[in-house]
Amino acid sequence: MAGTAGQVIKCKAAVAWEAGKPLVIEEVEVAPPQAMEVRVKILYTSLCHTDVYFWEAKGQTPVFPRIFGHEAGGIVESVGEGVTDLAPGDHVLPVFTGECKECAHCKSAESNMCDLLRINTDRGVMINDGKTRFSINGKPIYHFVGTSTFSEYTVIHVGCLAKINPLAPLDKVCVLSCGISTGFGATVNVAKPLKGSTVAIFGLGAVGLAAAEGARVSGASRIIGVDLNASRFEEAKKFGCTEFLNPMDYKKPVQEVIAEMTNGGVDRSVECTGNIKAMISAFECVHDGWGVAVLVGVPHKDAEFKTHPMNLLNERTLKGTFFGNYKPRSDLPSVVEKYMNKELEVEKFITHSVPFSEINKAFEYMLKGEGLRCIIRMED
Amino acid sequence: MAGTAGQVIKCKAAVAWEAGKPLVIEEVEVAPPQAMEVRVKILYTSLCHTDVYFWEAKGQTPVFPRIFGHEAGGIVESVGEGVTDLAPGDHVLPVFTGECKECAHCKSAESNMCDLLRINTDRGVMINDGKTRFSINGKPIYHFVGTSTFSEYTVIHVGCLAKINPLAPLDKVCVLSCGISTGFGATVNVAKPLKGSTVAIFGLGAVGLAAAEGARVSGASRIIGVDLNASRFEEAKKFGCTEFLNPMDYKKPVQEVIAEMTNGGVDRSVECTGNIKAMISAFECVHDGWGVAVLVGVPHKDAEFKTHPMNLLNERTLKGTFFGNYKPRSDLPSVVEKYMNKELEVEKFITHSVPFSEINKAFEYMLKGEGLRCIIRMED
Ligand SMILES: NC(=O)c1ccc[n+]([C@@H]2O[C@H](COP(=O)([O-])OP(=O)(O)OC[C@H]3O[C@@H](n4cnc5c(N)ncnc54)[C@H](O)[C@@H]3O)[C@@H](O)[C@H]2O)c1
Ligand SMILES: NC(=O)c1ccc[n+]([C@@H]2O[C@H](COP(=O)([O-])OP(=O)(O)OC[C@H]3O[C@@H](n4cnc5c(N)ncnc54)[C@H](O)[C@@H]3O)[C@@H](O)[C@H]2O)c1
Ligand SMILES: [Zn+2]
Ligand SMILES: [Zn+2]
Ligand SMILES: [Zn+2]
Ligand SMILES: [Zn+2]
Repeated sequence: MAGTAGQVIKCKAAVAWEAGKPLVIEEVEVAPPQAMEVRVKILYTSLCHTDVYFWEAKGQTPVFPRIFGHEAGGIVESVGEGVTDLAPGDHVLPVFTGECKECAHCKSAESNMCDLLRINTDRGVMINDGKTRFSINGKPIYHFVGTSTFSEYTVIHVGCLAKINPLAPLDKVCVLSCGISTGFGATVNVAKPLKGSTVAIFGLGAVGLAAAEGARVSGASRIIGVDLNASRFEEAKKFGCTEFLNPMDYKKPVQEVIAEMTNGGVDRSVECTGNIKAMISAFECVHDGWGVAVLVGVPHKDAEFKTHPMNLLNERTLKGTFFGNYKPRSDLPSVVEKYMNKELEVEKFITHSVPFSEINKAFEYMLKGEGLRCIIRMED
Repeated sequence: MAGTAGQVIKCKAAVAWEAGKPLVIEEVEVAPPQAMEVRVKILYTSLCHTDVYFWEAKGQTPVFPRIFGHEAGGIVESVGEGVTDLAPGDHVLPVFTGECKECAHCKSAESNMCDLLRINTDRGVMINDGKTRFSINGKPIYHFVGTSTFSEYTVIHVGCLAKINPLAPLDKVCVLSCGISTGFGATVNVAKPLKGSTVAIFGLGAVGLAAAEGARVSGASRIIGVDLNASRFEEAKKFGCTEFLNPMDYKKPVQEVIAEMTNGGVDRSVECTGNIKAMISAFECVHDGWGVAVLVGVPHKDAEFKTHPMNLLNERTLKGTFFGNYKPRSDLPSVVEKYMNKELEVEKFITHSVPFSEINKAFEYMLKGEGLRCIIRMED
């Protein structure tokens, strides 16, 4: 690998030229990593709804041409100046939010929203010089959330890379680098349901099912899965869901249906849809006095969360979380160990797999709501 | 006292005949207490903003004629069937929210929102028979939040009465029956600022100053007092406030001013105004990653809490509380003991005192924003 260090690498990347248009596999030039940056050879990547939102760019700032992708696993090819934590050959998971280990957030036990490296969906460049490391014939191609894993090689800030056990199979644990950890952590680190409690999960995509898995592991007695897509319900049983609701089957708001089913509301709810209506329902469906609602979904740019303040005064708690409150570098290696120790199953989240050349199929599956995670094999 | 038990008592009460019109001292008939009810001789009562809101009935359901009042101290005159916890002569503080000790809320360690006896501002009758215990020439006069302490005698559900140390001076500890406990508890039981943290308090009335006192006792390093009425600022220094902001002095939203003053936001905020704008500011002024905002103020009926969901996803927490999360019967006696042990000062909250005949002066002081609590002496 040392042969390419310090040099521009020419490789294949799936470029999004325009909002909503199929990605095009292009030959791109990937510049060497600068200070505190790492160039990573991606082996497996998967598609998360956040990629799709920013690719559609309906409620989001459009930044094109861009290389999407942020759930992945790879191997360090070379490191830039000042990088001491990682070396070529290390196995890593890229993460859309980083950990500089020096800011107030990184030093706080409560936060994982690093001042330097927290998610920034509008920025398409590296923070070191405000430029991209990708280009085609000298024309810049923009980055996405600091990861851009839909490329054979990518450049990532060292703070956005978790060094993991090299024995962990990257084609499986790559899904822990975003969605699964996000959902699982939202439940176990933030909602924290007590044993025997009732939990509602809004959205039964990979993130929501991981949240359900967290509720199951926590010993919840009832896990109510809510989705507009009833085809998700059968699958969701594997993740601990005991009951199902499709809001479209009811004339009244789903929070009222849940309140009736649970004698006033669930103890905890976790919203994993990105839909503002679901966010409001997820909040209003928790029991007064002690209910806690946790928001995970990434909302549209001009979404507005609205509720009567009395719903809050009635002693409900509303929280949001990024990446399940895990600190990427400090905590993610131990989530991978949970998988290695068979405390956490990831196989059941992986429903499809395609070679890199067919990456647009992964988008089609997600847009149709088919399956959970589609692994994209870079080396096929 | 036994002489009046079981009989109708004729006594003086301040009746609100119409929204916003001065109260009129009338002779009312107070029926004997029914099952699980207690008739209390009120010795001291004070005025809280919640009384004023429902008397003005601008954003609230109008229920008239009504006897307001819910911050008070008194002595049990007689008890109804089934009351075993209280006996004539016991010293009690009435509370606008009760504790039946049997429902899911009363049994939960987290909630004080008793299913049976939680605050109900629209109900003007007793729950036992759906009727009032007050009348004038046979015409019913309605109750307010189950307490109606602007009367020499009143009938209260046993679950809404805290039995306190008979040595505690009722002309002082009466203020612990609502506002002071509400504000103090909102900080120490719900916001829970760590030592050295920064806290913003919105609204420097009695409730807000009690919240500031809670922050001071918790060891907060900066306590920023926010009020539209700058005349509150000098007084607020006694309660630990170190800095002051009047939102009207700035063109930008006060949450932005606070964020600039505190490198991104305060660690905790407590809203004690009832104003929806202040509620939103109190939420948006807390630091992302770890900030906790606690709402205390009673909002207008059609107020709407609005914020961009990203403010939540950035790991802020929003909570509301009633009565500082204290369980009235279980916890209030120990708050009174805190006063007896000089751990909590209440004298500094009492700025005025009037005889019952001048009760309308207490309303004038509050409407002008003059002083904090005005004690109304029933026996003067
Ligand atoms: N906060 C974070 O750190 C973080 C990380 C990863 C993903 N996310 C977000 O989490 C959300 C879920 O991601 P995913 O990959 O599981 O997506 P997904 O598309 O696979 O699943 C979302 C599910 O929500 C359902 N849904 C949509 N609107 C709904 C509504 N109103 N009521 C009920 N169900 C509804 C859809 O039918 C779908 O099944 C997305 O918004 C994504 O951007 C957030
Ligand atoms: N949740 C509960 O259990 C509970 C219990 C008691 C009182 N309360 C409520 O607490 C609130 C405070 O009660 P109080 O007796 O201290 O009232 P108060 O009138 O003495 O004090 C309220 C203060 O808020 C200030 N204010 C109003 N709008 C503001 C704004 N937009 N920004 C900044 N300051 C603003 C006013 O100038 C005033 O100084 C009221 O809403 C009351 O109904 C709630
Ligand atoms: Zn993702
Ligand atoms: Zn940091
Ligand atoms: Zn009050
Ligand atoms: Zn109860």
